[in-house]
Amino acid sequence: MRIALVGAGNLATNLGDALVAANHEVLQVYSRTWESAETLASRLHCMAVTSVEELVLDADLYIVALKDSVLEEILPRLVQGREQALWVHTAGSVSMSIWENRGVKHYGVFYPLQTFSKSRNVDFSKIPIFLEANLPSDLYRLKGLAASITDKICEADSKQRASLHLAAVFACNFTNAMYVISEQLLKEQGLSFDALLPLVNETAAKVHALSPLEAQTGPAVRYDLGVINKHLAMLESHALYRDVYEQLSRCIHYEQTNIKKDDKL
Amino acid sequence: MRIALVGAGNLATNLGDALVAANHEVLQVYSRTWESAETLASRLHCMAVTSVEELVLDADLYIVALKDSVLEEILPRLVQGREQALWVHTAGSVSMSIWENRGVKHYGVFYPLQTFSKSRNVDFSKIPIFLEANLPSDLYRLKGLAASITDKICEADSKQRASLHLAAVFACNFTNAMYVISEQLLKEQGLSFDALLPLVNETAAKVHALSPLEAQTGPAVRYDLGVINKHLAMLESHALYRDVYEQLSRCIHYEQTNIKKDDKL
Repeated sequence: MRIALVGAGNLATNLGDALVAANHEVLQVYSRTWESAETLASRLHCMAVTSVEELVLDADLYIVALKDSVLEEILPRLVQGREQALWVHTAGSVSMSIWENRGVKHYGVFYPLQTFSKSRNVDFSKIPIFLEANLPSDLYRLKGLAASITDKICEADSKQRASLHLAAVFACNFTNAMYVISEQLLKEQGLSFDALLPLVNETAAKVHALSPLEAQTGPAVRYDLGVINKHLAMLESHALYRDVYEQLSRCIHYEQTNIKKDDKL
Repeated sequence: MRIALVGAGNLATNLGDALVAANHEVLQVYSRTWESAETLASRLHCMAVTSVEELVLDADLYIVALKDSVLEEILPRLVQGREQALWVHTAGSVSMSIWENRGVKHYGVFYPLQTFSKSRNVDFSKIPIFLEANLPSDLYRLKGLAASITDKICEADSKQRASLHLAAVFACNFTNAMYVISEQLLKEQGLSFDALLPLVNETAAKVHALSPLEAQTGPAVRYDLGVINKHLAMLESHALYRDVYEQLSRCIHYEQTNIKKDDKL
């Protein structure tokens, strides 16, 4: 398949690498800014374009990996004159219905569930890709494409994908926010975040064997007010972190007392 | 060293296993409840005791791994008649000064920085153990003990250890709370938490190579209000999770705009 990549962000960069490694023909990279387009295009040995008009008309597949707000705005101009191709977007939170009434017949979603940074290459073969398509024949084509870069091909409708994306924000983005807070707190005592890496590893490894609910430890689950109050006092000069600590301790306490009870009903 | 283990919780269980595996002589396990004491004692092939009076008088080392609130209360009776031994506690949040004015001369702290559950055995050799002692000779003895079960021996004073423990609550306990929320949200859509495991792994692996601040991704760091508002709408029936989402998005936005700025000064 001859592919045009619309977007040059974290996801487009990692996906582009995986597609080229799997010997797909990536024709062009589009980005509004020349620097982003050029950086990724030269990495993939293809052409950089910064206006929709320069985008090839005869690609087989257009992969649109743009910020949700930009996607909505640019879509009409993107598909114009390219209605015969297969169009997919890569956003967890955008419904497949965004392609409806655009004059396009072949469309779907190609959602790799992972956290991507330009500065870090990930092993795509372990990333689940959630697919959705308007036509069974297009789902089949997308499965073929996905199979060339990963072993984990899944189907999800738009509602399920939205839930996956929301859950991923908690499991990844908010988890990383916890790491940032840890790092800041340690920095103040002249300690390195590295001291926590074995703990970070085990916390992630643990939920492969135990359910997250069973894996929970710490002062909040024991409702150890002595420790909780000591910690809140230590956070006195960090109003934001103090609020996070209080709220998440409440959340853990709620989960441990309520979810388990419900599950046993 | 002839060791008495005071406590039979998650940490005592994993530490007891490691000590026995390293051929230390664990004489007794104390717990207030017979079931806990007996479960761990039989696992370690030693004696279970449920009253302080039954605790041996002539151990070389007493390792006290009790809930902070219980520790404070039971300490005077524990040390009585056993003042010549070396005493350590394992709590991150308890100062070494808790041993002062107890008639005890040899004391310190033996703090393995990890999350422990009884149902999961961890590889102790990768766990950093933070040590503190009143006397240099006792620090030396504790280092010897620690070296028999881990490669990662560190020193930390009580203030640093309190920070490590607080940071660990964020990096581990609150991270796991995020996993629990993810699991609950997916369950409602008939999806399994397993779909997120590659993401959980990569989120943890990423901060070995990038700083947490650099590793941050997601709608909050892009300040993508379209996605954020969609997610908040999806959480309408989960007031608690909605509040967590809002607060952590604010937190991420704050960190990305302020910490980076400060660091560049």
